Amino acid sequence: MLKQYTLTDLSDEAVEALVARNMDDTRAIEEAVQQIIAEVRQDGDTALRSFAAKFDKVELQQLYLEKADIEELAMTITRDQQRALEIAFQNIHKFHSTQLRRERAVETMPGVKCWREVRPIEKVGLYIPGGSAVLPSTLLMLGVPARIAGCKEIVVCSPPQQSGKINGFVAYCLQLLKIDRIYLSGGAQAVAAMAFGTESIPKVDKIFGPGNQFVTKAKSLVQGMSNVSIDMPAGPSEVLVIADETANPAYVAADLLAQAEHGPDSQAVLVSTSAELLNAVNSKLDEQLAILPRAEIAKMAIANSYAVEVENLQEAIRFSNRYAPEHLILETDLWESLTRYISNAGSVFLGHLTPESAGDYASGTNHTLPTSGYARSYSGVSVDSFVKKITFQHINAEGLNQIGSTVEILAELEGLHAHKNAVSVRK
Amino acid sequence: MLKQYTLTDLSDEAVEALVARNMDDTRAIEEAVQQIIAEVRQDGDTALRSFAAKFDKVELQQLYLEKADIEELAMTITRDQQRALEIAFQNIHKFHSTQLRRERAVETMPGVKCWREVRPIEKVGLYIPGGSAVLPSTLLMLGVPARIAGCKEIVVCSPPQQSGKINGFVAYCLQLLKIDRIYLSGGAQAVAAMAFGTESIPKVDKIFGPGNQFVTKAKSLVQGMSNVSIDMPAGPSEVLVIADETANPAYVAADLLAQAEHGPDSQAVLVSTSAELLNAVNSKLDEQLAILPRAEIAKMAIANSYAVEVENLQEAIRFSNRYAPEHLILETDLWESLTRYISNAGSVFLGHLTPESAGDYASGTNHTLPTSGYARSYSGVSVDSFVKKITFQHINAEGLNQIGSTVEILAELEGLHAHKNAVSVRK
Repeated sequence: MLKQYTLTDLSDEAVEALVARNMDDTRAIEEAVQQIIAEVRQDGDTALRSFAAKFDKVELQQLYLEKADIEELAMTITRDQQRALEIAFQNIHKFHSTQLRRERAVETMPGVKCWREVRPIEKVGLYIPGGSAVLPSTLLMLGVPARIAGCKEIVVCSPPQQSGKINGFVAYCLQLLKIDRIYLSGGAQAVAAMAFGTESIPKVDKIFGPGNQFVTKAKSLVQGMSNVSIDMPAGPSEVLVIADETANPAYVAADLLAQAEHGPDSQAVLVSTSAELLNAVNSKLDEQLAILPRAEIAKMAIANSYAVEVENLQEAIRFSNRYAPEHLILETDLWESLTRYISNAGSVFLGHLTPESAGDYASGTNHTLPTSGYARSYSGVSVDSFVKKITFQHINAEGLNQIGSTVEILAELEGLHAHKNAVSVRK
Repeated sequence: MLKQYTLTDLSDEAVEALVARNMDDTRAIEEAVQQIIAEVRQDGDTALRSFAAKFDKVELQQLYLEKADIEELAMTITRDQQRALEIAFQNIHKFHSTQLRRERAVETMPGVKCWREVRPIEKVGLYIPGGSAVLPSTLLMLGVPARIAGCKEIVVCSPPQQSGKINGFVAYCLQLLKIDRIYLSGGAQAVAAMAFGTESIPKVDKIFGPGNQFVTKAKSLVQGMSNVSIDMPAGPSEVLVIADETANPAYVAADLLAQAEHGPDSQAVLVSTSAELLNAVNSKLDEQLAILPRAEIAKMAIANSYAVEVENLQEAIRFSNRYAPEHLILETDLWESLTRYISNAGSVFLGHLTPESAGDYASGTNHTLPTSGYARSYSGVSVDSFVKKITFQHINAEGLNQIGSTVEILAELEGLHAHKNAVSVRK
């Protein structure tokens, strides 16, 4: 049963409190992570081995697996599973490969030519969570755009299983991506290793990937310490569903639970114009929860979630824009007329037959998306995240003649005479 | 006189040390900035007024200027100055307006349609440094792409002059940008105000702009505190010039000094295949320094800079890629054959008649660029920086039939049964 509010009853402050996420900054985690980072910087591989023994309960000689190991592990999964991973790979590839296009040069004045060229980020680090939840889909979501971008070095880190290996699904994805090595390191220590480098693990320019609070904190800390950058700040996953009387309550309930099963801190918000639908969804939630393997987790998340009754769909969209959800599902016949009003969201799922889980795995869009309200200013991961756009310009004699005095006047008014002289000396 | 190295004499570690930037993290600055942020969060406008009295030596009643004030101030500059700002505005507009293009939808499988749509970041904050150095060019470089992106609210903060006003150049740029208000706040306090909001200053979604160490530190701190994002980490400005025997030593010296006059911590690196050119540049540096108003600053920066002699242009480019300069100038007849090898740089200036100062002001490219080696993973500011790309997808009955079992298999292998059920329930 979702907590329920009626929007017209709420003050502006109450709405603000509803859309706010818990930005809970535990000092204890920060201190632990600082300590881990310091040890990895100082002791490199030795520190990584000792963290593997401590956290992953495994003694590692070599901190990575290579092609032969990966091939062997990949053969342990069924042909159906391989085929499903291949289809996901293909769809993700198809969608992402359209994201980069050559831009034309612009002659801003006669003889002054400016343009941008795309270059891959040379060394990228992909963090793939492991342990109890193994996420091969995340490897595809990060590896495919990295390959399309043309990154030269793709460093993949994932915590080892107690066997000292990785699971077969991740191994098969590595094969699809033609990545021949995976580093057996997880948690904050893996992030530190990729940020600073160790004997085994190369330092990278940008770190991608989701993870627990330790991973997230490590990513935010290394940013300022090692001119490495990160994909985006990460928080618990979330969905907002807008549903009207045309929605199927069983579908809505299933979508809310797909979010809720991620973790106790996940949030599933339902916004509806229909009181009847809200009731119907609540009873479907009970039915579906009863048979869900991760019911305990999902129940905690549902307790942390809520429903809002609104007067009309425009109000629903306004609330959603204020919340800025990672995932937004529009379960209404009228979705087509609403999309233009969506201003803040990570990824949007339209109509009654577009479950979020399709986008999590296989439709082609990326599942690495901004959470915690960051959809107001961040996009999800795409090929753009793996490249830089460098500006180039060329000025010829005519161009210098055209633009020269403008530059001289502006440099002078800013009091930068050497800037002015760089033009004057060329005249 | 630049310190001089010969690349072939240097070990890999020595090169690494040369290309490393000083990432000096003064704890004292962090503490001061934390204190300022805390005061602004707590006391809002009152804190801003007291910081204006303390740092800007001015008692402010109202924390902003409006249209009538701006118009009046804008009239205090000469017609030539207005004209130069207009040309810069037009060129920047022309170049940036080509940066956003509609993307087509992709049908990844029959009935599974995915696409991205661009949305402006709704509320953006532009920090324009003031005080001794007044930078109207920065207002154009940030304001023009914000306008092209369609940002709804553009909050501009700049420290007040002792008159309680801003200078006429900034005022004129506000008029060109059709921005009717400017907030009179500078330093870390302005960043805090835009991150959290005060009675006068609206909270924004993303903060842009350069500044001193306090501003930079404040931007990096508020990122994690207030789900606000920032344009990029900022460090001292820098240039790397690659010059061969075809280069004009007077031009090269002028370009190095244009960088050096920014601040004592600026760095100007010269990489050359020609020992003669290196000598000639050194004597031109002396000549030009002698008549430079900001000679004292430039001398300190030159002391912090160096030249490297290399065997050939390919080696020069490799060194440059390792350094990852904010600005790169190729002063060689052979520039056209080299551009494809440039992998890490913010903005590149090609040939003998393309001074960096053209790009700083008026050619059309942006001057807000990644420093301190961040060009390995960041692009300069562009219209992209002011928008999000939201993914949308729609699946119809055929599409669900096509993709359904793939999603079910993948959800199951990740142990996420509610994800699977969100498909199964729809079948």
